[in-house]
Amino acid sequence: MIRYSHTRLQALLSARFVEAGVSNDVAETTARVLVEGDLLGHHTHGVKLANGYLKDLSTGHAGGNPSRLTIERSSPVAALYDGHYLLGPYLVNHALEACAGVAREFGVGMVSLRRSHHIACLAAYLLPLVERGLIPIIMSSDPAVASVAPYGGTRPVYTPNPIAIGIPGREQPMLIDVSMSTVTNGTVNKAHASGVRLAHSVILDGYGAPSDDPSAFFGDPPGSILPLGGQAFGHKGFALGLMVETLTAALSGFGRKDAPQGWGAAVMVMVIDPVCFGGREAFLDETDYLARRCWESGEVEAGQHVRLPGQAGLTRRDEFLREGIPLPADVVTELEKALGGPAMAAEVAAL
Amino acid sequence: MIRYSHTRLQALLSARFVEAGVSNDVAETTARVLVEGDLLGHHTHGVKLANGYLKDLSTGHAGGNPSRLTIERSSPVAALYDGHYLLGPYLVNHALEACAGVAREFGVGMVSLRRSHHIACLAAYLLPLVERGLIPIIMSSDPAVASVAPYGGTRPVYTPNPIAIGIPGREQPMLIDVSMSTVTNGTVNKAHASGVRLAHSVILDGYGAPSDDPSAFFGDPPGSILPLGGQAFGHKGFALGLMVETLTAALSGFGRKDAPQGWGAAVMVMVIDPVCFGGREAFLDETDYLARRCWESGEVEAGQHVRLPGQAGLTRRDEFLREGIPLPADVVTELEKALGGPAMAAEVAAL
Repeated sequence: MIRYSHTRLQALLSARFVEAGVSNDVAETTARVLVEGDLLGHHTHGVKLANGYLKDLSTGHAGGNPSRLTIERSSPVAALYDGHYLLGPYLVNHALEACAGVAREFGVGMVSLRRSHHIACLAAYLLPLVERGLIPIIMSSDPAVASVAPYGGTRPVYTPNPIAIGIPGREQPMLIDVSMSTVTNGTVNKAHASGVRLAHSVILDGYGAPSDDPSAFFGDPPGSILPLGGQAFGHKGFALGLMVETLTAALSGFGRKDAPQGWGAAVMVMVIDPVCFGGREAFLDETDYLARRCWESGEVEAGQHVRLPGQAGLTRRDEFLREGIPLPADVVTELEKALGGPAMAAEVAAL
Repeated sequence: MIRYSHTRLQALLSARFVEAGVSNDVAETTARVLVEGDLLGHHTHGVKLANGYLKDLSTGHAGGNPSRLTIERSSPVAALYDGHYLLGPYLVNHALEACAGVAREFGVGMVSLRRSHHIACLAAYLLPLVERGLIPIIMSSDPAVASVAPYGGTRPVYTPNPIAIGIPGREQPMLIDVSMSTVTNGTVNKAHASGVRLAHSVILDGYGAPSDDPSAFFGDPPGSILPLGGQAFGHKGFALGLMVETLTAALSGFGRKDAPQGWGAAVMVMVIDPVCFGGREAFLDETDYLARRCWESGEVEAGQHVRLPGQAGLTRRDEFLREGIPLPADVVTELEKALGGPAMAAEVAAL
């Protein structure tokens, strides 16, 4: 299997964005975040997205110039950004770095971001902050899309609404990136495209009957995804989905009520510095202790150790940095479209 | 069925705490928060707890004097409290009010609280802040207890680790209070005491086999509770449980590594003011719109409208304020112990 060099991928994608009129720093950050998604193994939210970003840049829906970002309100520790659909990875990274500086001084920094373009893989933002001993938190929703139904309802109202958080640890940092629905839109789309059933009955068809058939989601009336917790405990996932929805869209002042069109995101970004609370060493002592307790908690399946969130991704990342990234076929196809043909894709394969 | 007056309950419980050496403001706040739990219908986390609090006060483990609280670190927007096992409702309420003042000025305020005594029902703290247009967030864990197993593990490592958040809304404020496990310790204890099965197989016995028998939890080796998401999606609940664990215990610098004994809590308290972000009106416009979309999203069970988190509790609360609280028998028994006999319990029944 061909393995792709992360540095070549990044350089070529960045150059392609610049060619499409994106300014250098926005192009570089976006390329870096996309490749980072693949490095962690999240191939649905990595370089595969570049082609869609380029399409939205060509229509003018997505922006590539940092001047699109306006800071609508600010205090010494908090701000409201309006992204005017500037590429999301630049906006989120900008917000995280602003929050990091504030957190160092005050303990916590927070940005509410409205009208971002798509923000790719949430886990891909965490490591640079975690490596500095900070705790980054990102929540996201897309007010232009409805795919998840309220618990007890049959029609989709909101999105999977993920929460991501990075947790420093000496032995094993944790990178958490989980949606508040049973599965994501991506999982349903992928199963539908491949013509396979889902592993569990986490779809409701348009009449509210549970199904593992992804085509039920695309029916008429349209189906929906069950909240995390499913049929038994979906009230919890529904509550958490509403939490993310309100801390992102409602807090930013721009959401479903504004009936936005096109790819976008409402985002909450926060950074916490343990130094301003119980201290860095005590924090790391506790997370290291917790990690060991989890690893030593036995095995439901013999030979299957407990894995901490992000542990598999970070192991994969180490390997991919050394050996290159084995991109799946569907990703390569999209990448070729983004980079302008098979010749370009072959070029990035060089390690 | 006897209905108990919330004002009489509060006054008598408060007096009982004062009698046990608790200072007036701590006694009043604790009694108010306990009764508020019952007003919202959370009877396992209401006045039933008072007797346990009194026991811990009598041994000296729990404290009733506000001077126990020390502020170990602070910035203009964040602080680390050490509660030295002062009664939790006072500590959490103190932290929330401090954060509310900060949030008005800066947008966000945050307190990390270590060595609190038990903090009762998280939902019971939210309404006073929500009514002022603020967003209170509370996360909690108990580093002295292990009941939930990591996803893929068979031995309990951490606690149900709830997240609570209050969301202002003109038509319907939302009060969210959900644990990151399938069920809580309370649910398991209650089923065990009543000799009934759980509604779902959310327990692992000591060998990792799923069970709906609560006695499997109390076996040797001990069983555990599955994370939210259960056997299929428990990696998400596990991740969220670790998020709460680290934002509470690790951030406060005091957790499982310190092997604490006795009833306690590590808590994160945060308050956000929408005025400093997208604005109060835009926030309420969006949450009202979202609430209507949820209500109009159809019905999986005919006649069973979608309910927003806290909606049933707030309706109940209105009724209980007017008509008195119909306390369950097990709560009355505990209450009688706390108040010193049936005569006292009869007295609080007067409306």
